[in-house]
Amino acid sequence: MVSFCQIGAGRIGQIHSGNIARHPRAQLKTVVDVDTRAATILAERHGAAVGKLETALADPAIDVVLIASSTDTHADLVERAARAGKAIFCEKPLDLDRKRAEACAEVARKAGVPLMLGFNRRFDPNFAKLHKQLREGRIGRLETLIITSRDPAPPPLDYVKVSGGLFRDMTIHDFDMARWLLGEEPTEVFAAASALVDSGIGGIGDFDTAVVTLKTAAGTLCQISNSRRATYGYDQRIEALGALGMLRAGNVLESTLEFAGGTGVVGEKPLHFFLERYAAAYRHELDHFIDALENKRAPMVGGEDGVRALKLAEAALESARTGKAVAV
Amino acid sequence: MVSFCQIGAGRIGQIHSGNIARHPRAQLKTVVDVDTRAATILAERHGAAVGKLETALADPAIDVVLIASSTDTHADLVERAARAGKAIFCEKPLDLDRKRAEACAEVARKAGVPLMLGFNRRFDPNFAKLHKQLREGRIGRLETLIITSRDPAPPPLDYVKVSGGLFRDMTIHDFDMARWLLGEEPTEVFAAASALVDSGIGGIGDFDTAVVTLKTAAGTLCQISNSRRATYGYDQRIEALGALGMLRAGNVLESTLEFAGGTGVVGEKPLHFFLERYAAAYRHELDHFIDALENKRAPMVGGEDGVRALKLAEAALESARTGKAVAV
Amino acid sequence: MVSFCQIGAGRIGQIHSGNIARHPRAQLKTVVDVDTRAATILAERHGAAVGKLETALADPAIDVVLIASSTDTHADLVERAARAGKAIFCEKPLDLDRKRAEACAEVARKAGVPLMLGFNRRFDPNFAKLHKQLREGRIGRLETLIITSRDPAPPPLDYVKVSGGLFRDMTIHDFDMARWLLGEEPTEVFAAASALVDSGIGGIGDFDTAVVTLKTAAGTLCQISNSRRATYGYDQRIEALGALGMLRAGNVLESTLEFAGGTGVVGEKPLHFFLERYAAAYRHELDHFIDALENKRAPMVGGEDGVRALKLAEAALESARTGKAVAV
Amino acid sequence: MVSFCQIGAGRIGQIHSGNIARHPRAQLKTVVDVDTRAATILAERHGAAVGKLETALADPAIDVVLIASSTDTHADLVERAARAGKAIFCEKPLDLDRKRAEACAEVARKAGVPLMLGFNRRFDPNFAKLHKQLREGRIGRLETLIITSRDPAPPPLDYVKVSGGLFRDMTIHDFDMARWLLGEEPTEVFAAASALVDSGIGGIGDFDTAVVTLKTAAGTLCQISNSRRATYGYDQRIEALGALGMLRAGNVLESTLEFAGGTGVVGEKPLHFFLERYAAAYRHELDHFIDALENKRAPMVGGEDGVRALKLAEAALESARTGKAVAV
Repeated sequence: MVSFCQIGAGRIGQIHSGNIARHPRAQLKTVVDVDTRAATILAERHGAAVGKLETALADPAIDVVLIASSTDTHADLVERAARAGKAIFCEKPLDLDRKRAEACAEVARKAGVPLMLGFNRRFDPNFAKLHKQLREGRIGRLETLIITSRDPAPPPLDYVKVSGGLFRDMTIHDFDMARWLLGEEPTEVFAAASALVDSGIGGIGDFDTAVVTLKTAAGTLCQISNSRRATYGYDQRIEALGALGMLRAGNVLESTLEFAGGTGVVGEKPLHFFLERYAAAYRHELDHFIDALENKRAPMVGGEDGVRALKLAEAALESARTGKAVAV
Repeated sequence: MVSFCQIGAGRIGQIHSGNIARHPRAQLKTVVDVDTRAATILAERHGAAVGKLETALADPAIDVVLIASSTDTHADLVERAARAGKAIFCEKPLDLDRKRAEACAEVARKAGVPLMLGFNRRFDPNFAKLHKQLREGRIGRLETLIITSRDPAPPPLDYVKVSGGLFRDMTIHDFDMARWLLGEEPTEVFAAASALVDSGIGGIGDFDTAVVTLKTAAGTLCQISNSRRATYGYDQRIEALGALGMLRAGNVLESTLEFAGGTGVVGEKPLHFFLERYAAAYRHELDHFIDALENKRAPMVGGEDGVRALKLAEAALESARTGKAVAV
Repeated sequence: MVSFCQIGAGRIGQIHSGNIARHPRAQLKTVVDVDTRAATILAERHGAAVGKLETALADPAIDVVLIASSTDTHADLVERAARAGKAIFCEKPLDLDRKRAEACAEVARKAGVPLMLGFNRRFDPNFAKLHKQLREGRIGRLETLIITSRDPAPPPLDYVKVSGGLFRDMTIHDFDMARWLLGEEPTEVFAAASALVDSGIGGIGDFDTAVVTLKTAAGTLCQISNSRRATYGYDQRIEALGALGMLRAGNVLESTLEFAGGTGVVGEKPLHFFLERYAAAYRHELDHFIDALENKRAPMVGGEDGVRALKLAEAALESARTGKAVAV
Repeated sequence: MVSFCQIGAGRIGQIHSGNIARHPRAQLKTVVDVDTRAATILAERHGAAVGKLETALADPAIDVVLIASSTDTHADLVERAARAGKAIFCEKPLDLDRKRAEACAEVARKAGVPLMLGFNRRFDPNFAKLHKQLREGRIGRLETLIITSRDPAPPPLDYVKVSGGLFRDMTIHDFDMARWLLGEEPTEVFAAASALVDSGIGGIGDFDTAVVTLKTAAGTLCQISNSRRATYGYDQRIEALGALGMLRAGNVLESTLEFAGGTGVVGEKPLHFFLERYAAAYRHELDHFIDALENKRAPMVGGEDGVRALKLAEAALESARTGKAVAV
């Protein structure tokens, strides 16, 4: 039985605690949150206790610290948990600052504790199946990879201000997908970006619409399309072209329902946003993390992956500003 | 908290006990099965006890008897549970013999206990959404309803022999769907059937391929297509044509993956069989049952629904044998 | 070069004359129509002459009489053309009265002239490909065939009155499709029908909504679904289930355009009606007819096919009235 | 009646002459080709004469010179026809050298003759409908445009050598689509390219796989994905994301047929290559040209469009070589 102390009782924290609760070999022991009310509700729902981090870190009965608090707290918490010898599951990113992220990943590495970063999309069953068939050679040598990733609506400006910007906050997921699917590191990044959706976003020097090109040493190409707005819902697709054919993973729709009438044949929208679309992915990433712990294997996504995705984000930002491809 | 005694620890029993376990306001207290080993495994998985039915029926702490044992035991168990004043969730059918089913439904009715019959498809999210939009008038007056229901592969002949035959065993689900979606009772049944899939099925006088026509007093028409074999997986679709348009609910696929190559564009198969396809439906039907108990409302599907579906099955069998439409 | 005299310059006549004009080895010589104005327009468009039937029948330079005039004139015209030794292309049906149709087909047979009946759907490229793969065994033994055939909107009541009724006028196409795809003759017909779309149609004793079941001696089953109204356009689909899989031919859409927005993902409607949907089929049926003449082979669809489809229509009508399956 | 002299009796010439022949107000008078045999076959098929260009240019009965000969002859022929006062339809490109193309367009402009360039894709019914809805505002302000354009298989190396390279030969179509759909000129071009499909192509310094990013002054973004190989057929898609939704035009499939079996649900491949996919586009572009002549309007695509697309191709090539975005 793997025992969890979870830090953060917000939206994403509720997802993780629910998944811990339903896992046959995991239990949620402690919930930590500065918002005591939120912590209490979550703890009660799953038969856990509200607690303090110090106590949990000192408690040998706690195996894992799951970090789902605000981004600016991640790096410190990872380091504290690592020094306490706990296994760590941390929501992405480690930190918005790459050097801080690197330092933090290094602390965990030196402490010798397992550290898994929550790049949930690798665990989406559709993308995972695409990845598997890619590796098995169904389309032969991969030539062009296309990642579409659009949010249904822009976040509040207050969030955008502290988000680290489009590339670090949103495209970071796509950089991780790209690295994972390409199977080799991108060596060149080009980005073009605009603020077309929300003038407020442009006003603070950020972007809401972007396209990115990655190229690897072997010449494989990758295109990413991002937008902070898609009126039809969360748009999450992958297309991979190779020597033997093409693989695509499309959106997951609200239902299979279809209406045919005077205005055409109307299918359902994609599932609204990440909580809905990646519900299974969140379950599977936790299952994977627990399996990794039980089998003493490194989790599939670690601190180094977070750092590398961040490097690509920084390069994209530089490219969007300079109009030049940036080598990484 | 609603407490369950579950009878039957087989394939479908495992589904139900898992769903009870994950429900926040339900608990599995007792598992009863002649196969003690199966009962023990299931009970241990969910923190329940292996027990005897007599004891459970006498135990005031048990609220519900969930019957997931073999078909021939259903009617007796329903009556015993009803007489003990327990709420009842019974897998379909009540009994293969209509008179026995009627008698049994009557016992439950007289006992005044809630009785829900496990017509799971009404709780499939896709079909439920179609039903909702139908009632809300999205396609206006319903004119023609088309139900496709095909199993991936025929069951073993030993099962077929005790199944009650194609219409009572398989089409029964479609008869329930038809009644529910039509919103009025069919008054006329015509069926044509063959044994094309498995000559063994023909050898014992049963069918494996059938088409059924239903007509209501208002003239609404319904077509059902059944087969014991679909090499591409469990084929479960609804199409409803009305004055203002058409609604369709298609198959649920294994994933959104698509491969394009020299032989065409290959999409995924429908989910293999009922355990996969109706996983959500099984959860929702249990949720509905518990809600109904908590709110002292009658469950959506009761004993009478089982009897009526059985009447349609009997009429279909008579029609297939005589070549005449049968009035019901 | 095959020379045509075409009788009828209406909507369907314009289709045929256009297809003759574009055929490299065919020419339209004479257009005959009681409406001289319509005949003149058509003749001028294609460099033909307006003429009289007598003259054309006596003219050895005319090879083919193409009959696209009103239904009640077909049988007489076929007989006159046959007696004049002309090859004949006749729009369906030969006649609404089966005995008259039989007599007329017999006249053509005895005259030894080629007679092709315009069951255009056999020449639709989608259906033709399905038929080919069916015969080549792609789905093994055919078990269940499903034909969907719905018009976008009911015809004027004046047309309905002289149409011969739903089964003879509309379902007749589906009976021909069924015979062609089944590859064996139906031996049993059951139909249920209603007037749900237009009370005027019900008022004159006809139907606008029908479902038909066919069964062959080998036990193969076929379902047909008809409606005089589909708000989303002309609905023409085939589904064939066999031992090794399923083949489907769907609707042909107005374009590949798709709009995704707040109300869902909206695809295009099926092509509006038969002139649009079967434009290629009309070309191919004429090509086939000319090929057959040039190679002295019997055309794929002859008088006998018209008679057999009519027999099925009569059986369906009897069945809808009596509620019994009718043997044919 | 518009009279044509067509230069070039090859593959694309056959398409154009067929479309002239079927147009009610156009006639093919003269066919010119150095391959007399090819010219004769084509002329005979359509009742035209084999002739010499000099004669045709001097013949007042010739209205249009249609140029479908090899690329290196285009510019000279355009100039000769322009000086003879003929209207001109020229297959793309005017010339592979931009300065030569500009000079040639200028000659036509000064001569005051209509010059249409054969960017056929603007006339594809699917893309034309997308364009129309874009302009009508169905998705509001366009934010991101995505163009997928992949050939089924790489051309022979001998062709590649004289083709002008991937960007001038293949992407040129996409640059024209981008300009047309964006509705404003791209001001910045970035391209990344590789030779992954055919090492011979890499050997002569050309590419077979490329991705291009365009940006306009208003900040609208455009991504192009090119490959010389798609095993599943000619892949031609457009996706346009805007403030109010997304519009997509997908591939045109060989038929609507679908096979469901043990390996999944198999749909048809896209139409094989440009002759099949753009058959309707070729008809519509000729219709448009003839309409423009009759109504004395400028054709939709002129010499200037050819020059601008070529500029983008040159910029892309420079960008692919330097790794920098190139301003245009």
